[in-house]
Amino acid sequence: GRNVLIVYAHQEPKSLNGSLKSVAVEELSKQGCSVTVSDLYAMQFEPRATRNDIVGCLHNSEEFNYGVETWEAYKRGGLSSDLIEEQKKVQEADLLIFQFPLYWFSMPAIMKGWMDRVLVQGFAHEFPKCYDSGLLKNKLALFSFTTGGSKEMYAKGSISGDIRYLLWPMQHGIMHFCGVKVLAPHICFAPEYVSEEKRKEMLVAWAQRLKTLWKEEPINCSPEWYFK
Amino acid sequence: GRNVLIVYAHQEPKSLNGSLKSVAVEELSKQGCSVTVSDLYAMQFEPRATRNDIVGCLHNSEEFNYGVETWEAYKRGGLSSDLIEEQKKVQEADLLIFQFPLYWFSMPAIMKGWMDRVLVQGFAHEFPKCYDSGLLKNKLALFSFTTGGSKEMYAKGSISGDIRYLLWPMQHGIMHFCGVKVLAPHICFAPEYVSEEKRKEMLVAWAQRLKTLWKEEPINCSPEWYFK
Repeated sequence: GRNVLIVYAHQEPKSLNGSLKSVAVEELSKQGCSVTVSDLYAMQFEPRATRNDIVGCLHNSEEFNYGVETWEAYKRGGLSSDLIEEQKKVQEADLLIFQFPLYWFSMPAIMKGWMDRVLVQGFAHEFPKCYDSGLLKNKLALFSFTTGGSKEMYAKGSISGDIRYLLWPMQHGIMHFCGVKVLAPHICFAPEYVSEEKRKEMLVAWAQRLKTLWKEEPINCSPEWYFK
Repeated sequence: GRNVLIVYAHQEPKSLNGSLKSVAVEELSKQGCSVTVSDLYAMQFEPRATRNDIVGCLHNSEEFNYGVETWEAYKRGGLSSDLIEEQKKVQEADLLIFQFPLYWFSMPAIMKGWMDRVLVQGFAHEFPKCYDSGLLKNKLALFSFTTGGSKEMYAKGSISGDIRYLLWPMQHGIMHFCGVKVLAPHICFAPEYVSEEKRKEMLVAWAQRLKTLWKEEPINCSPEWYFK
């Protein structure tokens, strides 16, 4: 049985994002996977990277450097308990699914805060252990999200550009940097502007994809995939 | 006298980001500009997009939709006071400067939260008033940031890709979407790995650029600039 961590960022359980999350829990559990959900809004997850993330004394209290301090704190087991908890979930996971509505060509701030705070140096990467040799290698990640704009608006040559352009920072800059292999994104375009029936089809399509997910090959996470 | 809003996200006033912010306040004030700073960490700015952003009753309390609710709340003057405050600053500004350390190919979560929460529909955009006809047209924006990686790592063909790739969501997806014209970014590469003297040169170069900033032409914010 594989372990899956779903990092989920939507305020409303009845939203399409909420349903997509539930579908994933159900389908993957049915397959025998052990599924954990970090429901960021429900947890009131803290997105701000501050001194509170370090328990006890600072390495250099004269000039606070978040990257250095969390690295040092990680090594001595001095990160705040919410971060240790999330890191444990990541460590145990074979697959990370990020489920969210696209906010401003990216993830909502609460999820960006999860990235900023959980993936600390020493845990997720440690130069030169980055990209293909990142510390989270042998894991998979999948970005599953909804958009406001339509598929046509996110086509190459359209005003919002190819949807792949905006995946670069998330898939390559974060996940690939940590050594995680990236599966093709799962995108539900403009669910607010389609019929209830269409939305149901979106849920069915997601469940369907999950049935054969473990047979998928990761994308080739290089500029060609994004900008070719 | 022009109005400038500096949205600033660093925990440490003694950091290079802190100094870059101070240099901008000083130089622009000297020019006769009126400069306002939103010091996000000092303000303990809330990055999470939640129901708390709406004062009073919801438009649809059965199923919470953040985009719809903040749009409705904006129209009836029912956004939370911290958002109204930030929107006032944006409204009055001719130029927005975003000063931050690059976190994971993007801005820190606390600044992403500023984008998510402040730039609500009705205020910053209102379909089809987006991109060149966005509601914040006639304003300028400039992203000024520091990186962990070196300039060489962010060159085309290098592992981290052209630095312009990661500017797409921020400059085009956010600012251009709201109608704001974008000035060339100001990037200080890897200040933690250079000498104190080099860091001082970075501050001087920033002050120098600001002296002739108002004569600059905005970039052509289209895919060619980013991915050509």
